[in-house]
Amino acid sequence: MTTKDDITLHRGLQGVYFDRTATTFIDGKQGILEYRGYSIHDLAAMSTFEETSYLLLYGDLPTQAQLDEFDAELKSSRELPEQVLDVIEIVKDSHPMDVLRTAVSALASFDEDREDNSIEATYRKGIRLTSQFATIVMAHHRIRHGKDPIKPSTSLSHAANFLYMLEGEEPTADTAELMDRDFVIHADHGSNASAFTARVVAGTSADLHGAVTAGIAALSGPSHGGAAENVMQMAQEIGEPENAAQYVKDLLASRQRVMGFGHRVYKAEDPRARHLREGVRKLSEEKGEPKWYAILEAVIDAMKPYARRGIHVNVDFFAGVVYYLNGVPQDLFVPIFAVGRVPGWTVQVVEQFQHNILIRPLLSYTGEHERPYVPIGDRG
Amino acid sequence: MTTKDDITLHRGLQGVYFDRTATTFIDGKQGILEYRGYSIHDLAAMSTFEETSYLLLYGDLPTQAQLDEFDAELKSSRELPEQVLDVIEIVKDSHPMDVLRTAVSALASFDEDREDNSIEATYRKGIRLTSQFATIVMAHHRIRHGKDPIKPSTSLSHAANFLYMLEGEEPTADTAELMDRDFVIHADHGSNASAFTARVVAGTSADLHGAVTAGIAALSGPSHGGAAENVMQMAQEIGEPENAAQYVKDLLASRQRVMGFGHRVYKAEDPRARHLREGVRKLSEEKGEPKWYAILEAVIDAMKPYARRGIHVNVDFFAGVVYYLNGVPQDLFVPIFAVGRVPGWTVQVVEQFQHNILIRPLLSYTGEHERPYVPIGDRG
Repeated sequence: MTTKDDITLHRGLQGVYFDRTATTFIDGKQGILEYRGYSIHDLAAMSTFEETSYLLLYGDLPTQAQLDEFDAELKSSRELPEQVLDVIEIVKDSHPMDVLRTAVSALASFDEDREDNSIEATYRKGIRLTSQFATIVMAHHRIRHGKDPIKPSTSLSHAANFLYMLEGEEPTADTAELMDRDFVIHADHGSNASAFTARVVAGTSADLHGAVTAGIAALSGPSHGGAAENVMQMAQEIGEPENAAQYVKDLLASRQRVMGFGHRVYKAEDPRARHLREGVRKLSEEKGEPKWYAILEAVIDAMKPYARRGIHVNVDFFAGVVYYLNGVPQDLFVPIFAVGRVPGWTVQVVEQFQHNILIRPLLSYTGEHERPYVPIGDRG
Repeated sequence: MTTKDDITLHRGLQGVYFDRTATTFIDGKQGILEYRGYSIHDLAAMSTFEETSYLLLYGDLPTQAQLDEFDAELKSSRELPEQVLDVIEIVKDSHPMDVLRTAVSALASFDEDREDNSIEATYRKGIRLTSQFATIVMAHHRIRHGKDPIKPSTSLSHAANFLYMLEGEEPTADTAELMDRDFVIHADHGSNASAFTARVVAGTSADLHGAVTAGIAALSGPSHGGAAENVMQMAQEIGEPENAAQYVKDLLASRQRVMGFGHRVYKAEDPRARHLREGVRKLSEEKGEPKWYAILEAVIDAMKPYARRGIHVNVDFFAGVVYYLNGVPQDLFVPIFAVGRVPGWTVQVVEQFQHNILIRPLLSYTGEHERPYVPIGDRG
């Protein structure tokens, strides 16, 4: 028997490094986030989701010709096989994350590379899934309301097409750009629980569809993907900006968390948060609902005293309001997170495949030993 | 920026303890395996899959009344919702592990406790899934061959019913007992990659259906669940017992692995292996194909010199032949592993929920920093 003495327990694997990556760099203390060495601030300001996806997958920013080819691949992958629409119809009354998980799992059956688990095929699958995720989320939303899915556009950007598939209306340029920026800042984030799940699955040499299906399962948990949904709920409970300070005070007095604040990794401001802030201000004015922006600002003011303890606004804080103002229902907020995250999951699975190893940690046993098996008649 | 110097890398998380467990104890050096403190040898010899499942889930062996109630719950959960059979029909041409993953994900939509993520509801879901997994695997097998699924028996044991659903023929008592023993020894095995995946998903407070869907994805990888399939392939390639020694020699000379030998955790003999050995001998005689047992024994003989290096026969070695002799096609071998593992996944998810924490390790970044964003026209 092993002795308990020589066991160091790393609950939650906090602070444990399980592998190397050349994809995303996070410095939680200083609030730095880089994809492939490029600052998230530059990418949020100047790049697009398509270009950022290319960068994440292949390591460098594309030339115009490379980007055009990549974009054409994305655009040509937007339609779903009829059979997957049938699966969505069958499970349509479930939570959209469960539907997404089932639909992506089913997509594996119809992927043209399903017998090929090479890295090249994994890239192709990842590109297809990036487009298919967006279509699944919106097709399900239509189907559950008894409407036909909107046929994906073959010309709009990924972000504009995503919003277009909600009601068949093209978003304004500003709105499409804000949605695009939201996807850019969600595209990867190191070994968060869903990407880590995808890597554990890939560690057994399972394929990308299995890995991202598992990633969706992890993201569906309220401790991972749930915060964007909760921020909007909080904003609605607050109701008016002048109630924010008291609301925050009451919440903290009862030792509850303020939604959209704090992060396992960031002890400084989440560098992604600011990139939605100005967009939310403009969008909430444009939509004639400036109070949502005002409420969020009032919450930030009320939380300022806690910044010293490392509790800062995170990426979820503004994201939910972006979706809300675009008419997206709250139960699609986490699926939108998933839509943006496909390039990150894909490249992390590729990294795992490149130097693969089974990820298999240990549990420390605390129970009894050598219990005698008593025949069932003698138990009691 | 963090310095590289203070980073210790735990690739594959080998040897890292991430939590406590009171479920299963494994001593890899001495080859000890206990469920809830009971030796796997006692359980394999004297218990049943139903009783062992109860033990794993609740911590103690049941009284007769408790076992009867538990067994009645299992038996009443064997039928699948029509909608899940429809999903299986849609994806029927996929690998059975992909079908199992999609069907279990879809089951979430029809579970009566789907809105309830409490520990009590998780137990109920786990019991239902234990029965439903068996039905999914066999229903899919029937459907893909254009046959109607066999309606599950309401009287046979879990193991006998499983074999019954293949062709509608009740297995002999000996055969049912061997299948039962196979399920007993597969019921849990600490934080192997699939159970660990399930725990990572549960760590985000996602539900059991999400966790086991992810577990299936991990188990589908050839580095985790694949070995039972490969042993039978090897036995067929060897063809006759007298070829075994040369086959093993050639394999090792070309630095390939001998299937069914070696284990990440066990450096002694896998304590589960012996419990199928005698059963395989009897079954292969009963079926008039004694050569399969003889081939396996010849492989074990040929591998004896490598036992000193800690390379011993593992649980997969005999399992595949058990399935083969029962007329089960090779692509169902890993799904059978999954069918047996549901109680283990369930109890590990319950343990995770009891003291939940987000499982989120770190990746060490090895790429570039502070790359300047160059406008697309200036790249190339």
